[in-house]
Amino acid sequence: MLKLAELYAPVADDIQCSADIFRDELISDQGFISDLCQHIGQFHGKMLRPAILLLSARACGELRPEHHTLAAVVEIVHIATLVHDDVLDDADIRRRAATVNRLWGNERAVLLGDFLISHAYHLCSSLDSQYASRLIGKTTNTVCEGELMQVANRENFELSEPEYFDIITRKTASLIGTCCRLGAYYAGADPRTVRRMEEFGVSLGIAFQITDDVLDLTGDEAEAGKSLGRDVEKGKLTLPLIYYLGRCTPAERERLLTILRADDPQRHRRVARTILSADCLEYARDAAYAHIKKAVQALDELPLSDARSSLAAMAEFVVTRRQ
Amino acid sequence: MLKLAELYAPVADDIQCSADIFRDELISDQGFISDLCQHIGQFHGKMLRPAILLLSARACGELRPEHHTLAAVVEIVHIATLVHDDVLDDADIRRRAATVNRLWGNERAVLLGDFLISHAYHLCSSLDSQYASRLIGKTTNTVCEGELMQVANRENFELSEPEYFDIITRKTASLIGTCCRLGAYYAGADPRTVRRMEEFGVSLGIAFQITDDVLDLTGDEAEAGKSLGRDVEKGKLTLPLIYYLGRCTPAERERLLTILRADDPQRHRRVARTILSADCLEYARDAAYAHIKKAVQALDELPLSDARSSLAAMAEFVVTRRQ
Repeated sequence: MLKLAELYAPVADDIQCSADIFRDELISDQGFISDLCQHIGQFHGKMLRPAILLLSARACGELRPEHHTLAAVVEIVHIATLVHDDVLDDADIRRRAATVNRLWGNERAVLLGDFLISHAYHLCSSLDSQYASRLIGKTTNTVCEGELMQVANRENFELSEPEYFDIITRKTASLIGTCCRLGAYYAGADPRTVRRMEEFGVSLGIAFQITDDVLDLTGDEAEAGKSLGRDVEKGKLTLPLIYYLGRCTPAERERLLTILRADDPQRHRRVARTILSADCLEYARDAAYAHIKKAVQALDELPLSDARSSLAAMAEFVVTRRQ
Repeated sequence: MLKLAELYAPVADDIQCSADIFRDELISDQGFISDLCQHIGQFHGKMLRPAILLLSARACGELRPEHHTLAAVVEIVHIATLVHDDVLDDADIRRRAATVNRLWGNERAVLLGDFLISHAYHLCSSLDSQYASRLIGKTTNTVCEGELMQVANRENFELSEPEYFDIITRKTASLIGTCCRLGAYYAGADPRTVRRMEEFGVSLGIAFQITDDVLDLTGDEAEAGKSLGRDVEKGKLTLPLIYYLGRCTPAERERLLTILRADDPQRHRRVARTILSADCLEYARDAAYAHIKKAVQALDELPLSDARSSLAAMAEFVVTRRQ
């Protein structure tokens, strides 16, 4: 298992600097709001997006103060989506801590998500150029579309593979692609490199989400540190299921749909058992690996550096992780 | 009763132009998202914020294309807050149309609110300068704080008048103040005028919210075109109640708190009846008028114009309206 701390070594101080900006941005004169923000500080977890942004900067040119600010911005955006996701998914646990909705109810969770996203844009607008504000605004438009598409396709057991990829590209991969683009752009990279870095991030993001979806189906809740099985519970088709439904017999299809529609707390375990014997997880993992291969190829033209090696290793981490 | 169309006459074409920008910004390649956005087009209602921004521009100097964009931005921000408010308030009707949460559930309403706010920032970042992005970001930070404070004070029957004013200043008046500031600033007004215009907007916004709270208690649902009585239902103290609780006898206090805590669909009517005889509504209306007077004074130094007259008349409209 790869250790993230080792991969993050080229930007360890920069990640800390971004975490400080994150914390300072969210201080409020209202004590209870600062308390809420301190609680969600626990959701930082892997700090994947800030690390990828900062490593992209380091791998492409000079890491500047703007990068620290932007790394905090993308982490705030990400955590805002987690807080609202937990409301939509009715989740109890996040990074081994209680979710905001569980502790303080859906209303505060919705408003806290709004507060966070507002601060992300506010922090972003503190930079001299509008480039980041425009890109972050465009990206969050896309993320919201992906999330809306996902909700609109609940209980849609006809969801196709291209539709699935469209949804995860928008809701997950677009923000990671933007991290890489921002890292490269503000490091002074040429337009081709900026574009290739975004491709790296998008491919890595797709692989990340496929892996997340597989973990939701087959992972261990204690190991993952968050509520699992939510996709099945919420009628959300993911790649292993789409693959299964596309190749099984009509009788098998009926059997699986019956399980999916049943009101049974063990439903996702039963789904996992059903598809385990049908190479579905292998298929999903292969798809994730294919995207990781594409991601790593996008790094081909970068000069060799510790940061580039870390990015390549992170691509591998994304598909081998268990949380 | 003042007619809004007459007050808006100096900027009628400009309001239409902003409405077009609003509509174009929210077009998505996903048909169902465009449908959702078309539905919320019905929530436009009074278009108070765009009108105030545009009239402020016209009253202070030259109305420029940036103003049309910004008028669309503030309306999108406002409608995003309405969509999330309706989730928090569990409201059924908004501007005589069904709320998003009622039609499509809380999940889509939360995500649609996120989609709208994202587009507001995205549209704002299309301007050349960062000034508006910074101000809008700062303002939405404040609005979210106000909303969080409001939720945190549910069932707090000790809420003081200064606390109430702090909450409504943040959640409502700050955005209207920002409309006036943006209008003046982008029209080339000097710093003193920009500041005075913001004061106009903040005072008008406070009066607006006091009036809204009075209407929620005593208004007619058919006339208002939205769900009423929500404040009492959600344990939200507003000015008439705060005034009553601050001056009544201990026995009267106990009686009112018993009504407020009861699970009774006619609760807010009973509250309204209780305080009707105690000058509480007059007190709240007087407070609203005091702020309107302050608002109109802030216009003193502006050159005479149709736009200035409209702003002064809108201040009056805000406290005399019945919806």
